[in-house]
Amino acid sequence: MELYGYWRSSASYRARIALNYKQIDYHYIPVHLIKEGGQQHKQAYRQLNPNGLVPTLVDGKVILHQSLAIMEYLEDTHPQPSLLPGNAQQRGAIRALALDIASELQPLINLRVQQYLSQQLEVSDNAKQAWLQHWFKQSFQAFERNLEEVAGVYCVGDQFSMADVCLVPQVYSAQRFGIALNDYPIMMGIYQRLLELPFVAAAHPSKQPDAEV
Amino acid sequence: MELYGYWRSSASYRARIALNYKQIDYHYIPVHLIKEGGQQHKQAYRQLNPNGLVPTLVDGKVILHQSLAIMEYLEDTHPQPSLLPGNAQQRGAIRALALDIASELQPLINLRVQQYLSQQLEVSDNAKQAWLQHWFKQSFQAFERNLEEVAGVYCVGDQFSMADVCLVPQVYSAQRFGIALNDYPIMMGIYQRLLELPFVAAAHPSKQPDAEV
Repeated sequence: MELYGYWRSSASYRARIALNYKQIDYHYIPVHLIKEGGQQHKQAYRQLNPNGLVPTLVDGKVILHQSLAIMEYLEDTHPQPSLLPGNAQQRGAIRALALDIASELQPLINLRVQQYLSQQLEVSDNAKQAWLQHWFKQSFQAFERNLEEVAGVYCVGDQFSMADVCLVPQVYSAQRFGIALNDYPIMMGIYQRLLELPFVAAAHPSKQPDAEV
Repeated sequence: MELYGYWRSSASYRARIALNYKQIDYHYIPVHLIKEGGQQHKQAYRQLNPNGLVPTLVDGKVILHQSLAIMEYLEDTHPQPSLLPGNAQQRGAIRALALDIASELQPLINLRVQQYLSQQLEVSDNAKQAWLQHWFKQSFQAFERNLEEVAGVYCVGDQFSMADVCLVPQVYSAQRFGIALNDYPIMMGIYQRLLELPFVAAAHPSKQPDAEV
């Protein structure tokens, strides 16, 4: 398999964790989101991914975008170890938490939105920082409340799942943007445990060939 | 089952289409997103849904938020008729398109973001309209390009799927916000066919008990 991604992109980070967890070998192809006006906008890449976003997974003739669709595809084709363990109720809780991050928080704070705020709306750096603080706080407060109901060692019970895959890059991103994280003890406890898993550690942005550190 | 929703919310509209498609009887409980400062923020509702968003599905002891997690749960518990027909490749394409709407477009144009733009950033009505136009155009252009590869009678091939469920409310929302739709002939052809399906028609906002028309 081939994974087109960017070291610091949280959706790429999710895909790497999922591939590592399932012990699937893959070839990593960096797409630089800043250089040359953003390589994700080049025509060759847009052929693979019309949204001009990372990641994209290529598996033979299958070309797939959207990190959650990629994870569900890996689950379909490589069921073990599972990213969606448990019964229907638990899978529901896992997917809800994964989507709380992927469909509520991340879309509001990603690069293209920050660029629009600065360039089109000419929002000040302070107001942009307030935007980030606001959406992280809204989401993480609700996430912590949800964890009170469903968490164990990991986000949903004691088994690693797709919800954990989504949590790791989001906390990484929060730290990058200087978001205060003291109010989320359950979430941060899980995050610390997740960082110790070797397949999570290997997916860290700083360990990727395109890392700039 | 009980569905907490709002007539005009696109995520609620998705859940209604999916429930109708699977011929699952449900009790609809309106949550007014504007009145009383937004009933979704009341403590009783936040107990069910800490995000303060609609919809929420209650199925016995299962309480589930996030429309895509709700659809996957319905698929798990009521597999036929399927919202994810076909093989792993087709299911991948279905989920990618569903997420293009649910994780890229809708989060940027929903009520809480429009309120933040107006109230916190004091963005003018014109600039807010430009924001809406921009994100709809970005997403719908890519959606049309993706449809060139995978569409048939419906979004992915000739079978109704979760991608179609997500498309209908998004076009409804685009029309509400005065978005030009001439540049998306494949998408709009599919949309017209979808509107004729009785289980889609019955889910229309104007047909709900809390509709204000």
